[in-house]
Amino acid sequence: MRDSKLLGSIREAIEAAGLKDGDTISFHHSFREGDLAVGQVMEAIRSLGIKGLRFAPSAVVNLANFSLADCVRDGTINRVEASGIRGELGDGLLDGSIVLPQPAILRPHGARPRAMEARELTVDVAFIVASAADERGNCTGQIGANPCGSLGYSFVDARLAKKVVIITDTLVPYPCCPASIGQRYVDYVVEVEQIGDPAKIGAGAARLTKNPRDLAIAQQVADVIAACSLFREGFSFQTGAGAISIACTKFLSQRMAEQRVTASFALGGITAAIIDMYDAGQIRTVECSQSFDAVAAGAILSRPGVVEIDNADYAGACGKGIFLDRLNFGVLGALEVDVSFNVNILTGASGRMMGGLGGGPDVAVGADVSIVALPIVRGRIPSVVERVEARCTPGDTVACVVTQAGVALNPRHRSYPMLREDLAKSGIRLASIEELCALAYSITGRPQPMTYTGRPVVKVEYRDGTILDVLQSHTVE
Amino acid sequence: MRDSKLLGSIREAIEAAGLKDGDTISFHHSFREGDLAVGQVMEAIRSLGIKGLRFAPSAVVNLANFSLADCVRDGTINRVEASGIRGELGDGLLDGSIVLPQPAILRPHGARPRAMEARELTVDVAFIVASAADERGNCTGQIGANPCGSLGYSFVDARLAKKVVIITDTLVPYPCCPASIGQRYVDYVVEVEQIGDPAKIGAGAARLTKNPRDLAIAQQVADVIAACSLFREGFSFQTGAGAISIACTKFLSQRMAEQRVTASFALGGITAAIIDMYDAGQIRTVECSQSFDAVAAGAILSRPGVVEIDNADYAGACGKGIFLDRLNFGVLGALEVDVSFNVNILTGASGRMMGGLGGGPDVAVGADVSIVALPIVRGRIPSVVERVEARCTPGDTVACVVTQAGVALNPRHRSYPMLREDLAKSGIRLASIEELCALAYSITGRPQPMTYTGRPVVKVEYRDGTILDVLQSHTVE
Repeated sequence: MRDSKLLGSIREAIEAAGLKDGDTISFHHSFREGDLAVGQVMEAIRSLGIKGLRFAPSAVVNLANFSLADCVRDGTINRVEASGIRGELGDGLLDGSIVLPQPAILRPHGARPRAMEARELTVDVAFIVASAADERGNCTGQIGANPCGSLGYSFVDARLAKKVVIITDTLVPYPCCPASIGQRYVDYVVEVEQIGDPAKIGAGAARLTKNPRDLAIAQQVADVIAACSLFREGFSFQTGAGAISIACTKFLSQRMAEQRVTASFALGGITAAIIDMYDAGQIRTVECSQSFDAVAAGAILSRPGVVEIDNADYAGACGKGIFLDRLNFGVLGALEVDVSFNVNILTGASGRMMGGLGGGPDVAVGADVSIVALPIVRGRIPSVVERVEARCTPGDTVACVVTQAGVALNPRHRSYPMLREDLAKSGIRLASIEELCALAYSITGRPQPMTYTGRPVVKVEYRDGTILDVLQSHTVE
Repeated sequence: MRDSKLLGSIREAIEAAGLKDGDTISFHHSFREGDLAVGQVMEAIRSLGIKGLRFAPSAVVNLANFSLADCVRDGTINRVEASGIRGELGDGLLDGSIVLPQPAILRPHGARPRAMEARELTVDVAFIVASAADERGNCTGQIGANPCGSLGYSFVDARLAKKVVIITDTLVPYPCCPASIGQRYVDYVVEVEQIGDPAKIGAGAARLTKNPRDLAIAQQVADVIAACSLFREGFSFQTGAGAISIACTKFLSQRMAEQRVTASFALGGITAAIIDMYDAGQIRTVECSQSFDAVAAGAILSRPGVVEIDNADYAGACGKGIFLDRLNFGVLGALEVDVSFNVNILTGASGRMMGGLGGGPDVAVGADVSIVALPIVRGRIPSVVERVEARCTPGDTVACVVTQAGVALNPRHRSYPMLREDLAKSGIRLASIEELCALAYSITGRPQPMTYTGRPVVKVEYRDGTILDVLQSHTVE
């Protein structure tokens, strides 16, 4: 094993790795909609005539110049397992226009390492995109022409996949430093023209909002956090990448400055707003499993307290402890929440696939105070409902729901006595979840139940592998 | 697993980990003779009456205030596996005064991860000393009251031991940053008064020399390296921690400055001399599996190109590639070398255990040019001999032997044609290994063969698990 691992093309790497019909392939989604590598790999696989693959990336995002749906249609892919399936493929599965022989499996971020370590998901070839690599496979997302930041999702693939192919557009002299993934795990290295566009990492899920309603909700979330007795020197938080969540980070920073409180750590998907707080001395360490924009992607290299962490260390459902175990506040986006506090982060009333599980179910169970932030209605569609269409996060793990019309505490959540006491003093407007639901329905009318009576098309797995829900296609057969 | 893992004492941790008779325990030896934790753990084990343990640290060093030999004598330890067994215990095994039911097993650094991954060596409880840790087990050797630097030897224990106990004298607020070993691997954390003395890391194997003969040999080694065609921009080297090796680093730095050559990486056990070269811009990256002195221990934190690496990434005998695969020059200390270039780094003519295998056998096979540096005689004892007393590194993996009386190239080594050509131009005095042996014998007389006819007491394993040699006790039974 003294020779270079560098091969001339993705096609050569696929052949060298011995990929064959029926195998499982994986990718990380750190470039999100800016990814340019998944399409190149799938084109090469298709050109080799390999069929019937299980496609098991950390998440399926909507690729600008490539149709994954076509890979299902032509039989290149016949199984899908990921944290979410955005775009044409997810929509097609739900509306029945794209058919998989077996339901797709969606797992939250913390469940993927568990499923892989339990060998429920075995990856034959992991294609890991890295913004810099040497010819022996030491690689990182932190330097190079197109940095994507943390490679946290891929560490488990590097450890456990049978073959590991590094795809880079910046080949550096040996040894690549920093090395997020080491040569010990890498079989082949391929250089391509461009792996992705860092400017587009912030597109899709990770975007800022100017919507006044969303800003009001974000402010309310910050007020709830600031009212809590857990909001004290050395507290910890994760605000995530939803539109409201990112805005919330800014308001939280203000509250922290006002009350002269600093955080011991911020966790998970990291944005420029979090890096600003680190630079201002408001956060001691930033534990970064994903970089949600180009600023966050570049921050790990230059700031000693901004560190890249393994997704399994962030959220993993097995092992002896994760960062989520010590999280005080977690802010979660949602499409719907129901009167039992169950959360839907996948499907909209439109019938389209509107989001992915991400780390939401993990953060909910990990955080002392898990906060679902959402407007009570979106357009003419209620967000607080009697029963969610897709149960992604069990209601018992949600501490409260923050809307523009009030904050509903979950009486069944372990933090309820503390939260009730803390918020009573704050002047924050409390409401029962049933009141919020009634208010929503008073605006939109009671929604017609969506009766999905088609085939099961998506299984929603929980952290421990149990099935939380099965989504059916809209098509009645 | 949300609670603190902090326990009140080492004894509590031993009980919590369920250590029982016949189990295997491990430690790292990064504090070398400055270690203060192994003794505390063994005292606690002894106080609990646990017997028949397999003692499997990365290396057994001579502890100042604790007798490991006594732990064998009283049956607390009845098996020993390590890279070396210095001091009273090793000497006692060889002279027959300390008896183990089975021979001790010595493995070079690269073989330990292999043996553990192959489950030939399974560790029940790993006691990992860290200079800073939080109460959930995130820990490092880089900060705290008594830094020891790289924890590279312990990563494999953290990954594979059934229970992992972190022992620290500096408990830091959660989350410990940097975190060399993550909470995911840690069961318990114990705070003690002092884990070790960084000032003593440089004692024992890692020491500087003022001996003019050793300095002359070190200079000769640097001359050999500088004469090689592989000595060019971007070359790589490992000089190690032997007395001659450390001096060699200084001379190599001079040659590099004279010829305006910089190195892509330095590898392995790192000394202050290497850090000086990094600071001077002579080395781009320092891949640090062990910190050989307090300066090197502190360098990882403050210098982005000085990085802590897993011993398995340095030298591991399994996996898809290691840093040693790309090493140009490796300088190796030795007690004896024979006319077949076999190297003895364990036993002296005194019958005492004079050294450990360390990474020597790994570096020999990895480096393009593996250089054994030693004087032809030490006192009245020849160092170049007909047949080594203990075969630790196979002669085929040694490129050349550098002595004060000349340099012997190994005609069977793969680098021989290149070295012969390179050195022919250099004016360096070449000699055959037989000539060096004859010269040594002309000074000392032909040594009496040491006929060990006692029990087998030490098995010397090679990287792949084969037995290279079996050392017998001096005692005839």
